[in-house]
Amino acid sequence: MTLSDEVRIALDGKWRHVREKSRTELAGLDLAFDHDLTLDQARERTFAQLKELVPTGVPAAGFKTEHGGGGDPGMAVTGIEMLAQFDMSLMVKAGVQWGLFGGAVANLGTERHHALIPQIINLDLVGCFAMTETGHGSDVQSLETTATFDQATGEFVIDSPTPGSRKDYIGNAGKHASVAAVFAQLITRGERHGVHCLLVPIRDEHGADLPGVTTSDCGHKGGLRGVDNGRIVFDGVRVPRENLLNRYGTVDEGGAYTSPIEDTNRRFFTMLGTLIRGRVSVGGSAGAAAEVALSIAGRYALKRRQFGPDADTEVLLADYRMHQRRLLPLIARSYAYRFAQNQLVARMHKLQNIDGPPTDDTAQQQRELEGRAAGLKAMGTWHASRAIQESREMCGGAGYLSENRIATLRDDVDVFTTFEGDNHVLLQLVAKEMLTAYGQEVGGLDPVGMVRFVAGTVTDVVKERTAASQLIQRLIDARPGGDEHDLLDRGTQLELFEDREQHVIETAARRLQRASKAEPEEAFEIFNNAQDHVIRVGRVHIDRVVLEAFTAGIARCEDEDAADLLRDVCSLYALSTIEEDLAWFMGHNRLSDQRAKVITSEINALLDKLRPHLLTLVEGFGVPESTLDAAILRD
Amino acid sequence: MTLSDEVRIALDGKWRHVREKSRTELAGLDLAFDHDLTLDQARERTFAQLKELVPTGVPAAGFKTEHGGGGDPGMAVTGIEMLAQFDMSLMVKAGVQWGLFGGAVANLGTERHHALIPQIINLDLVGCFAMTETGHGSDVQSLETTATFDQATGEFVIDSPTPGSRKDYIGNAGKHASVAAVFAQLITRGERHGVHCLLVPIRDEHGADLPGVTTSDCGHKGGLRGVDNGRIVFDGVRVPRENLLNRYGTVDEGGAYTSPIEDTNRRFFTMLGTLIRGRVSVGGSAGAAAEVALSIAGRYALKRRQFGPDADTEVLLADYRMHQRRLLPLIARSYAYRFAQNQLVARMHKLQNIDGPPTDDTAQQQRELEGRAAGLKAMGTWHASRAIQESREMCGGAGYLSENRIATLRDDVDVFTTFEGDNHVLLQLVAKEMLTAYGQEVGGLDPVGMVRFVAGTVTDVVKERTAASQLIQRLIDARPGGDEHDLLDRGTQLELFEDREQHVIETAARRLQRASKAEPEEAFEIFNNAQDHVIRVGRVHIDRVVLEAFTAGIARCEDEDAADLLRDVCSLYALSTIEEDLAWFMGHNRLSDQRAKVITSEINALLDKLRPHLLTLVEGFGVPESTLDAAILRD
Repeated sequence: MTLSDEVRIALDGKWRHVREKSRTELAGLDLAFDHDLTLDQARERTFAQLKELVPTGVPAAGFKTEHGGGGDPGMAVTGIEMLAQFDMSLMVKAGVQWGLFGGAVANLGTERHHALIPQIINLDLVGCFAMTETGHGSDVQSLETTATFDQATGEFVIDSPTPGSRKDYIGNAGKHASVAAVFAQLITRGERHGVHCLLVPIRDEHGADLPGVTTSDCGHKGGLRGVDNGRIVFDGVRVPRENLLNRYGTVDEGGAYTSPIEDTNRRFFTMLGTLIRGRVSVGGSAGAAAEVALSIAGRYALKRRQFGPDADTEVLLADYRMHQRRLLPLIARSYAYRFAQNQLVARMHKLQNIDGPPTDDTAQQQRELEGRAAGLKAMGTWHASRAIQESREMCGGAGYLSENRIATLRDDVDVFTTFEGDNHVLLQLVAKEMLTAYGQEVGGLDPVGMVRFVAGTVTDVVKERTAASQLIQRLIDARPGGDEHDLLDRGTQLELFEDREQHVIETAARRLQRASKAEPEEAFEIFNNAQDHVIRVGRVHIDRVVLEAFTAGIARCEDEDAADLLRDVCSLYALSTIEEDLAWFMGHNRLSDQRAKVITSEINALLDKLRPHLLTLVEGFGVPESTLDAAILRD
Repeated sequence: MTLSDEVRIALDGKWRHVREKSRTELAGLDLAFDHDLTLDQARERTFAQLKELVPTGVPAAGFKTEHGGGGDPGMAVTGIEMLAQFDMSLMVKAGVQWGLFGGAVANLGTERHHALIPQIINLDLVGCFAMTETGHGSDVQSLETTATFDQATGEFVIDSPTPGSRKDYIGNAGKHASVAAVFAQLITRGERHGVHCLLVPIRDEHGADLPGVTTSDCGHKGGLRGVDNGRIVFDGVRVPRENLLNRYGTVDEGGAYTSPIEDTNRRFFTMLGTLIRGRVSVGGSAGAAAEVALSIAGRYALKRRQFGPDADTEVLLADYRMHQRRLLPLIARSYAYRFAQNQLVARMHKLQNIDGPPTDDTAQQQRELEGRAAGLKAMGTWHASRAIQESREMCGGAGYLSENRIATLRDDVDVFTTFEGDNHVLLQLVAKEMLTAYGQEVGGLDPVGMVRFVAGTVTDVVKERTAASQLIQRLIDARPGGDEHDLLDRGTQLELFEDREQHVIETAARRLQRASKAEPEEAFEIFNNAQDHVIRVGRVHIDRVVLEAFTAGIARCEDEDAADLLRDVCSLYALSTIEEDLAWFMGHNRLSDQRAKVITSEINALLDKLRPHLLTLVEGFGVPESTLDAAILRD
């Protein structure tokens, strides 16, 4: 086995078999995006491709065996992620159908709904996930669509009472979905019970809107031409009482509402929490797209020569310091996020335990998982946008041509920073998890609800590590003294990340605590003045989680040469992350001016060290050759 | 007049009349991009729009009156820039035809070529600018296409001797151009004379390739669907001797080559220097596109409400601290770059003096102008990409829909960082201008040529200011002592920018000086190790140029209220620029930890102060209402 193989095995992680299978299986399908198709043709082609995925087992993987699924959530999200390396539109459509729509039915529904799952898997029933409204995206609790129970007929009546309550940007709603999982304010006997989800048929078998339903098309977008995003307006649409996905709240024939979770907020966040796979998939898929772009840009840097010492000797792009500075830290970050993503998927898989017996109360772990999924989605999608953009520029004018793949990835990945929640809102969610003494009566995602519950003390937040904690603590304890070369020591890096997180959290908490007894207006003001600080909590937390995951991933790597290489990549990730926030480390006396200056030369030394391994590093991503079919890489 | 009007007048600058005319005149044409068109239809539509521009006078503006032009280069680039606010494809096609192709004929040709200019203006002669090759983009001196003089027939023979010598990404070459201005290595009597430009017919009146010419289409791109980028391969294509654009080098009937500039390098860079308008237009147009995106995002922030102190009170996006932090510094930077762009255009206009009598030797001013044009193009196009991307994200999922304009701007502007030279290469060019004792025998753009000529001393580089220098020096001299509030003082800001530039240049020069006597390989090594430092010279130089231009622009503003507002915007630009490089200012003892910490709170205070003026600020851009026709801004 080559070093690339060993690196790839380390990066592939636990669902390596799924990745390997996808690499060959998907390469056998005809998935290359065709820009000459009209919007309508592109959508039909993507839909046709979706059908070809059914036999791969990926669509079934995320559902319980007893429902006809594969009982393997890890496989489900890994399989979706792999699609992103072939075509992002296909990845999104698959994610909508099996992840979001299927996930809502599986997780929010009960037995009578679970019977639909086989049809969802094999595409006999195509659905959409109608959560976002024109007026509210990330603030799901404020959705305005209503589902009012009509006791006389035993039906729910679905309405879009305001222009802002129109369902918007809904994947599959433009054309292919016949049913929508509609999130709406549940009203029965004149009382509101918060947001619930109902199955609402929207189109007949000929694709025409059903009575009271008005769908429309979102039209052209910045990318994702194969996805039919659409809008839905409901005017008195009636569905049987049984269409309520009633695992967390049910309405009986007489209109009485009952729920196993009394607190409305807690119920809402519990429901949302079951849908975590969407965020996990979005983060992972954006990362997969970035890997494709970096693989193309990396190979191009090893092929393209420009300028040089004299007229006859042109130099490879990869040998220019500036080019190394642009390319290698992005590759290192992609490695880091992949290790973190693998860890996230493994934890999600374990916690969801979908085919296993009921487990003890896992509320704490579930909240941690949600925070990580949100934070990694935010940081990972931003990284992907940045890496793909830089890859485009690193390929010059050629990078702008569709035949070289990167421009399309760039267009497609753009919306991932918004999908499944705006990144800034998600980082606030992470911060909230870190900052609040999250109790039964936890506040919503609203700013005031958040500051109300800031914990009295946050001293132990960072120390309370799980999984990898022993290894991490050992490294931190073993770190050398403060001489200037200690910045390459993993323990020193971990300690710097941890210490920064702890400080940022403590100071943010101190600023917010004043709000805990204030009136709403004033509490909002206090929150708002600290908002950039709060979001920073989320960022530095994820930086630390990622470095720990990378460290743990290296510890699991069985090949010593691969582990050595990964150690340097990890240091490049750590040091370039520190470099980006250097003013903080200096201003807070975590790094002296002298040590701060060493960072840049240490990074340059790492670039020199990693340069000979550039091809190995991009091969390590394991991007299938067929998806690297960029004209600039052909001879 | 409203405050917005006064601000707009200040920003409009000297060619305000051109801007005002374009705003109404272009709004009267049907220029909104239609995403439903096929690639071919989109190109035909853009070409049809191009014809509608002829009567506006903008196409003629850039040519001498005696050649049938308008004698107003400032109007030419301002007019092109305004097109970018309506449709970027149209801007690019206009820039190619009248700026690049027409500019080559006007500036590199002589009388016999100038006779063509009226046909170029009115589109009877459509051309393309065939400089870039598959193998060489930014390194123009290494182009491989040859133009060999055949004494027997008195013709030049044009050849593409290698696969890399294919002309590539050439606008108008995909379909509409009948003639190409071809840059090629001139060979006569077996001797090479460097890159020259020749007019080569490529298509007959039916659009078919002429004998020996093979054109092809670059196909789909990341954006700019209305532009027909293409490739051209030449195989023994013969053109009369007179087709050489022979202002800077001519070949007589006997094949003897003569040139008014003996040194090959100097001749080459003089020729390139006459084509400066392309870079000026690209930078300005990217800025104009960013203004459209920020105008949409700014207005949306004043309309869209999310979350809030309680369920009934949702808060405007514009009132969130994080949103202000994302939006307002980008607006401030767009203001700053517009003032710098106006100054650049005014200097270019004055120096080109196209209808005036011959002037004294302006070589020094010309080099300065080229450095600024290159640097502002680089920094301005990166800013535009970033501002448009952030605007997209600030509009959430709606920002991704083509109906809201921003996604298309984002796709179209992407390649501007590569157009007219890769931004990193351009910043190296700026650095070279700052670092070298630029003499008659100046080296090329190649790294070794560059380090060979690093000046013995660079002490006075920054001090040698032109135009605005008295005002700037007065402000610097009048700055208060180092108390913590002095960071809002313009003199203090200017001094910080100037001091940083001086230090970065001096230290870079010191690193490079070792190379002046080294062998090529070693000299390259020394350059390469310092490459990130060299590029940083270009960045910090442009930061200073921009701050000075903003300062000078405020001094020219006649309305006191507008000037007051602009002063705050300028401080926001200055402080957010310092904040982005804070580690440098701290590490080099330019800002104490204490003063460094004040930066963030001063920025937040400026955000509070500017928030009530958000609408005024975006209205100040003067983006025509018709180009702001985004669905999310309609009621």
